[in-house]
Amino acid sequence: MTEHTGHGYIGNKDDYLKRLRRIEGQVRGLQRMVEEEQYCIDILTQVSAVTKGLQAVSLGLLEEHLGHCVVNAARAGDREAAIKVKEASDAIARLVRS
Amino acid sequence: MTEHTGHGYIGNKDDYLKRLRRIEGQVRGLQRMVEEEQYCIDILTQVSAVTKGLQAVSLGLLEEHLGHCVVNAARAGDREAAIKVKEASDAIARLVRS
Amino acid sequence: MTEHTGHGYIGNKDDYLKRLRRIEGQVRGLQRMVEEEQYCIDILTQVSAVTKGLQAVSLGLLEEHLGHCVVNAARAGDREAAIKVKEASDAIARLVRS
Amino acid sequence: MTEHTGHGYIGNKDDYLKRLRRIEGQVRGLQRMVEEEQYCIDILTQVSAVTKGLQAVSLGLLEEHLGHCVVNAARAGDREAAIKVKEASDAIARLVRS
Repeated sequence: MTEHTGHGYIGNKDDYLKRLRRIEGQVRGLQRMVEEEQYCIDILTQVSAVTKGLQAVSLGLLEEHLGHCVVNAARAGDREAAIKVKEASDAIARLVRS
Repeated sequence: MTEHTGHGYIGNKDDYLKRLRRIEGQVRGLQRMVEEEQYCIDILTQVSAVTKGLQAVSLGLLEEHLGHCVVNAARAGDREAAIKVKEASDAIARLVRS
Repeated sequence: MTEHTGHGYIGNKDDYLKRLRRIEGQVRGLQRMVEEEQYCIDILTQVSAVTKGLQAVSLGLLEEHLGHCVVNAARAGDREAAIKVKEASDAIARLVRS
Repeated sequence: MTEHTGHGYIGNKDDYLKRLRRIEGQVRGLQRMVEEEQYCIDILTQVSAVTKGLQAVSLGLLEEHLGHCVVNAARAGDREAAIKVKEASDAIARLVRS
């Protein structure tokens, strides 16, 4: 956790919140499917849908991050740029590997 | 959705439910992070954690599916086996690509 | 490496070889792109294409493996089935995580 | 393909070429494994290794791209920045989904 909060970098907060609430509902749906021992393949299909939803959230947030924080850092100076590029690259690596 | 419900193929239902409830809590945590506009990279790290949690659920369920449904189908006959292998392979492809 | 070679489990060996030779050519193409310092995004697009090609090979081989080795193990007995299911599940996990 | 070639943005070209030649050798090794019908799981393990190698190349190139092209575009102006951020984000999305 860092201190960079409330910077208004998220273009459309309501859209992200709506998507995350939808994902929360899907995860609750998964619990019901497991509870009722629904067919395994159907559960797996639903997990793939949730994962895709989370991925879309990540990619959207990352694009905003590049467009705001990384661009601003680039303009602030070489050192600032290098730090933000490294940080973003590490986050992308976690995303690609998860 | 199929009619194959309640077959008891899930070895440890409570464990899966516990993990899914934890994931639900993490998704609610993500909503709070977006609401408070916490630092983007921290949100992305949390999304990666949720994705990994879901992946572990998928891989666990898939292993149980192979060990029960696919093994039983293999013993029931060639046609049954072919159907279940195709279905499992399609689910694996969705998982790999999601 | 194990001793299970030459079992003829690969349905269409020539098709896999053709695909892998195509992938080899693409990897050589990547070397040329790096050598000539072509535009980074174009190189990344090409890497994604190669990865997708490899993924398709994996998914095809895995389906054949389930349809032959795992089905045969299921018919041979519970212990044989358990071993092959565990082994296949581990391979799927590596695939999903790579 | 674009005209942005020979820009010297790749920090350590020889290192990338060495890695790509290693990957080429691994892909040839895969052909031999299929030719000899080696055990399917061993082939899958090797495919995962190649995929990981390609992923590392992608992530390295992407980091250099962010640190050079995107940073330079950020300094050149808002329009240039927006174009490069969009382009990089699309490449990241392809990477995450492949």
